[in-house]
Amino acid sequence: MDKCSLMNEAEFTTRKPGFPGVMRAYEKVSAILPPTPVMSFEINDRQVWAKADSLQPIGAFKLRGAWHRLTDLSEAERARGVVAFSSGNHAQGVAWAASRLGIAATIVIPRDAPSIKVEATRSWGAEIILYDRAKEDRAEIAARIASKSGATVVPSFDDPWIIEGQGSAGLEAIKQLGFEPDLIVTPCGGGGLAAGLALSAPHAQIAISEPEGWDDMKRSLEGGVIVPVGPNPPSTACDALQTLLVSPLTFDVLRSRGAKGVAVSDGEIGMAMRFARNTLGLTLEPGGAAGLAALLYEKVEPVGRTLVMLSGGNVEPAVFAAMTKG
Amino acid sequence: MDKCSLMNEAEFTTRKPGFPGVMRAYEKVSAILPPTPVMSFEINDRQVWAKADSLQPIGAFKLRGAWHRLTDLSEAERARGVVAFSSGNHAQGVAWAASRLGIAATIVIPRDAPSIKVEATRSWGAEIILYDRAKEDRAEIAARIASKSGATVVPSFDDPWIIEGQGSAGLEAIKQLGFEPDLIVTPCGGGGLAAGLALSAPHAQIAISEPEGWDDMKRSLEGGVIVPVGPNPPSTACDALQTLLVSPLTFDVLRSRGAKGVAVSDGEIGMAMRFARNTLGLTLEPGGAAGLAALLYEKVEPVGRTLVMLSGGNVEPAVFAAMTKG
Repeated sequence: MDKCSLMNEAEFTTRKPGFPGVMRAYEKVSAILPPTPVMSFEINDRQVWAKADSLQPIGAFKLRGAWHRLTDLSEAERARGVVAFSSGNHAQGVAWAASRLGIAATIVIPRDAPSIKVEATRSWGAEIILYDRAKEDRAEIAARIASKSGATVVPSFDDPWIIEGQGSAGLEAIKQLGFEPDLIVTPCGGGGLAAGLALSAPHAQIAISEPEGWDDMKRSLEGGVIVPVGPNPPSTACDALQTLLVSPLTFDVLRSRGAKGVAVSDGEIGMAMRFARNTLGLTLEPGGAAGLAALLYEKVEPVGRTLVMLSGGNVEPAVFAAMTKG
Repeated sequence: MDKCSLMNEAEFTTRKPGFPGVMRAYEKVSAILPPTPVMSFEINDRQVWAKADSLQPIGAFKLRGAWHRLTDLSEAERARGVVAFSSGNHAQGVAWAASRLGIAATIVIPRDAPSIKVEATRSWGAEIILYDRAKEDRAEIAARIASKSGATVVPSFDDPWIIEGQGSAGLEAIKQLGFEPDLIVTPCGGGGLAAGLALSAPHAQIAISEPEGWDDMKRSLEGGVIVPVGPNPPSTACDALQTLLVSPLTFDVLRSRGAKGVAVSDGEIGMAMRFARNTLGLTLEPGGAAGLAALLYEKVEPVGRTLVMLSGGNVEPAVFAAMTKG
C-alpha cells in the first residue's frame, strides 16, 4: 500500500460525520433524485408525519449514503472499483450508485438474504459474491477482495460519508415539512440512518426502534457503552436490522444527542406493515416498519411534531402476505 | 330558483373544459399539495413511468377535480354547501376539499360501497346519505337535496371543472418528467381523469382501460357515439370504474383526440396489483390498477415514453389480500 492510501485510510478512520456533510449529501442527492413523499396521518388522534423512503428507486434509503460516498471518491479510486458487504439494501444502494457513476461494484451478500434483494442488486450490474453467514466473515472476504484489486470498501454504517448521506433524508423531510420535527422515530440496525437523522435535525429528540433481542443500540445507549447483541439472538423478520454490533461513529452521535431506544416484536411490526398497507398505501419490509410499530404501540410518546422514517419496502411477497394477514 | 342560479346553470352546462382550466387547476392544486411520485420501472425491458396518485391524502386523484370546482364557487355558493353522489373516491375528494374550505358537504353513497371509502368520507366531516343502488336514483336524491338547500351539485365526471382538475395530474407529471409523454394509459370510469389527462398533454396518445363488460367508453370511442354499459354487466372488482354511461363532455374530448380503449379482467388487474405491491411498493385498488394491467398484458403497446396513471389505492384489506395472492 502506498503512502497516499495510508493517509487516506488514516483520514477515513478519524473524520467525524457532521452537519456540513449532511448538507452536502442532501445537495448531491436532491440533484439526482426527487424527494420521497412525506405523508401525514393520525395515530390516536395525534398528527404524525412519515417519510416514505421505501419509495426510492431501490426501495430503501440506502442509496443516499452510497451516493455521498461514491461521488466523493477520487478518479483513481473510482477506477479501482468498490466493494461492500450487506444483507441487501446497502448492497442495492452501492450497486445503484456505482452503476450511475460507471464504477465496478462487488457485493458480498449472505446466502440467506432475501432473494429479491440479491436479484435487485444483480440487476444494477454489480458482481455478487454469496457467503455463508455462519461459517465465513463477510468483512474478511470484502477486505481480501479490496486488498487484491485496490477497491474501496464501502461499509454499511461505520463510515462518516454513509452516516451523512443517510442524514439527507432528514434535511429533505425538513424542507418538505417547512419545520424541524420535535421527535424523529427511526428503525435502527447499525445506526447509520439514525445518526444521520440526528445530525440533520439538531434540535429534535431521536428515538430508535430495534427488533426484540436485537436491541443492542438501545442497551448501549442506556449503559453509555457499546454492547453487542447477546448470544443466540432470537429470529426476527427484520433482516435489514440484524446488526450484531454498532459502531463508535453511530453510537457517539446518538449518545451525545440523548437518543432513546425501544424494542418491537415481529407481531407489532406485522401490524405496522398492515397499517402502512391499508392506511398509507405502502408496502413496507419488516425492518422498514420498526419505527412505525414503536409509535403505533406507544412505545415512543409522540411529543410535538413527530416524523417517522419508513426506511424500506423490499420484502418477499410471501413474507408480506403472512405478516399482514388477518 | 332565482335568475342568477339559472344563469349559472346555463353557463355550467355549456362551458367546455380546456387547457387553460387545467393549467389553472394545476396551479391551485400544487399550491396546497406536494406532487405525488412519478416512478420509473420496466415492463418487458421497456422503461415506463407511473404517476402514483394513490398516495394522495385521500388515496386517489379525486381531490384534484373537487378542489378546482369548490375553490371556484362564489362566497354565496360556498355558504349553501355542496352535494355529491359517488361510490367512494369522489365522495372523499369532495369531502376533503369542502373540509379544507369550511364548506358543508352532503355525500350520497351506495350502501354497497367499500366501507373504508364510506368511513374515510365521514372522517373528512361530510354528512353521509346511504342509498340502495338497485332501488333508488342517486342523481335524483342529490338533486332533491340540492333543490332544498340550494347546495351546488358536484358531479363526479360530467363537469368541466372536474375534468380540468383531474387533468392537473397530467401537468404535474409533465413537470416532474421534464417532457410530455408519447402515450398516457389511464383507468377510465366516467372519463373525467382520462379527458383531463388528454387536455393536459395535447400531443400524447391516450389509451383508456376499463373492466371487462364495463368497457362502454371503449365501445363508444370505437363507434363514434356514446353507448351505455350493456344489460346485466358482469361483476367486477373495480368499484371505482362501474359507470353505466359516460358523458358528452368526457367523450368528446377523448374522441377528438383519437383515444383508444381496452378492457381488462379481474385476474389481470389482480396481477397488476401484485406487481405494484412487489415492484413499486404501492397498495392499489382494483380500479387504480386497470391502466397498469393493460400495459402488463400488452393490451396497449408502450410506444415511446409511456406514462401510466395509478389512480387510487382505497381497497378493503381482505379484497387486496385475495387479489394479490399467489
